Amino acid sequence: MTKVSDIGERQLINRLAAILDVNARDDCAIISFAEMMGSNAVATDNNDGARQHNLTPSIVLTTDMLHRTTDFPDGMSYTDIGWMSVAVSLSDIASMGARPIGVMAALGIPQSMDVRDVEDIAKGMAECTHTYNTSIIGGDTDSHDELTIVTSAIGLCENGNVIKRSGAKVGDLVCVCKTLGGADAALRLLGIGKQGEHCTADIPDNLLAALYRPTPCVFEGIALAHTGVVTSMMDISDGLSLSLMQLSDASHIGFEIEQSAVPVHPDAESILGSDKALECALYGGGDFGLLFTIKADRVEVARKACSEMHVIGRVLEYGEIVLKHNGACTPLGAKGYEHFKTRD
Amino acid sequence: MTKVSDIGERQLINRLAAILDVNARDDCAIISFAEMMGSNAVATDNNDGARQHNLTPSIVLTTDMLHRTTDFPDGMSYTDIGWMSVAVSLSDIASMGARPIGVMAALGIPQSMDVRDVEDIAKGMAECTHTYNTSIIGGDTDSHDELTIVTSAIGLCENGNVIKRSGAKVGDLVCVCKTLGGADAALRLLGIGKQGEHCTADIPDNLLAALYRPTPCVFEGIALAHTGVVTSMMDISDGLSLSLMQLSDASHIGFEIEQSAVPVHPDAESILGSDKALECALYGGGDFGLLFTIKADRVEVARKACSEMHVIGRVLEYGEIVLKHNGACTPLGAKGYEHFKTRD
Repeated sequence: MTKVSDIGERQLINRLAAILDVNARDDCAIISFAEMMGSNAVATDNNDGARQHNLTPSIVLTTDMLHRTTDFPDGMSYTDIGWMSVAVSLSDIASMGARPIGVMAALGIPQSMDVRDVEDIAKGMAECTHTYNTSIIGGDTDSHDELTIVTSAIGLCENGNVIKRSGAKVGDLVCVCKTLGGADAALRLLGIGKQGEHCTADIPDNLLAALYRPTPCVFEGIALAHTGVVTSMMDISDGLSLSLMQLSDASHIGFEIEQSAVPVHPDAESILGSDKALECALYGGGDFGLLFTIKADRVEVARKACSEMHVIGRVLEYGEIVLKHNGACTPLGAKGYEHFKTRD
Repeated sequence: MTKVSDIGERQLINRLAAILDVNARDDCAIISFAEMMGSNAVATDNNDGARQHNLTPSIVLTTDMLHRTTDFPDGMSYTDIGWMSVAVSLSDIASMGARPIGVMAALGIPQSMDVRDVEDIAKGMAECTHTYNTSIIGGDTDSHDELTIVTSAIGLCENGNVIKRSGAKVGDLVCVCKTLGGADAALRLLGIGKQGEHCTADIPDNLLAALYRPTPCVFEGIALAHTGVVTSMMDISDGLSLSLMQLSDASHIGFEIEQSAVPVHPDAESILGSDKALECALYGGGDFGLLFTIKADRVEVARKACSEMHVIGRVLEYGEIVLKHNGACTPLGAKGYEHFKTRD
């Protein structure tokens, strides 16, 4: 017998995706209006580039499962839990360049839980949806031993501006939206996880907010999609390094990343020092930033759409992902968060 | 402190729905194309009848959370578990008269689970989606102590034929699609639950299939919606009695149900006897049939769309739901499945 823990999440997903004949490569499933009205065909899988070359609108759909022990760090309030549960799905919608239309929430709730705490979860959900001009449109509840929340979101890409992971081209520039490493730095400073630092000083509110109230780049994603200069995009939920690997696989390209250009969260840097903060930025999850590629001669167009944009490197031929520092290149490892698999 | 178990599922949902400002009354959320394109407005809530009087298409969305101990009876194979997880969402889509477009699946999987069993779940999901001309379009996996599956489905109502719970009118006929009580009878005969009968004889395959492979009325729902004579509809997932109560609340009407017209599953009747089988049909969950109302003079039109249709009574003024037997009327209780709340 092969246990789930023997093969890890990514291999499991690949095996399930093969049975289900589903394209698990993008952050969302994509259904164009034309397909929806015309036939029973569903998720598109045209590999000829990130932007679908049709002008009919598409909807995008995503689902995310979170639960108490793994996904909600100690110290999170129930409103934070509600916020994060919605934010994780909105981040997927954002990564396709879509406008969120609605979110559904399925809650597995322990019988012994205080009703007010459940209500606080709902308040956090409402707050997050309203911040991004959308709302909760439905849901389900179930009695459950461990608090479990599954959000499913729907978004709209008007005029066919769906940005996929598969469109990066050699010569494109690699960019991220937002600073990175804040959530992981907070986690370390709180002494959670293997690399806990057991910080004795006060942790800045900014860092705690990065962990407890991650902000999906919803408006930036929409604005970037409208520029027409973004060739591929995804969200950075499991760390920059792992996201680069996934984008590399989907677009069949490589990357050269300039270490000094990686936008490390300033508070992480000042407290943890630059080496550890860089490690958080490269390998830590939870930031909900966007990773995307743009046409090399269109930086200013993209920057107008996304003021928090940082160019961190360029797209190479398929091969390694290298980190360049003081002229020397080293391969960037694939460390990052993965469910199931026992980590080294 | 008020615990979740003190107030029960329905009151909890009402409290959450108030915070989230969501209409939790129909089986699915409804978003018209016009709303989706034109504004950020989402779930519609026009109370002027079951059919939306516009001709633009709408999409409907639903999410359902199932988990090992509560929702998957002993004896279910993993392929059955996959099938049922999808069927429960497709049944919600069917109840709106919508055509399913795609299903997402979030799986919370114990680390110690055999990979082949997880693959069997995926096979059951694929089988169910294909049976109803749709497919799995995306998903998520998470490591979880208890097997937990959340499916979220999207459906399309062309030409505005969305059937809601709120459109039943006095004088309409009440109908169900499919026989009822099969799933609950099988549960009893397997000795599961409070009213287990610990059957010694073999349980007919038909009854086991009703429990383990419930068939959502997808094609019937679509066909009924196209007739234009259905005034309200919902699925019967938690028992006929509870569904009648919910339809009564949504449409603000009452019902007179003719006991002899309730289509009890024939195998349930022959094994359990007519009294117990009727109890299964009235109060047992898991059948995934449709409950709907139609204009009284259009029975034949509806029957053409749904050959398994049974007229079971008629719509009265708002008030009691009564069960009529040999000319005598008794109020129909609201027994039925509810999470959380300790049952009497």
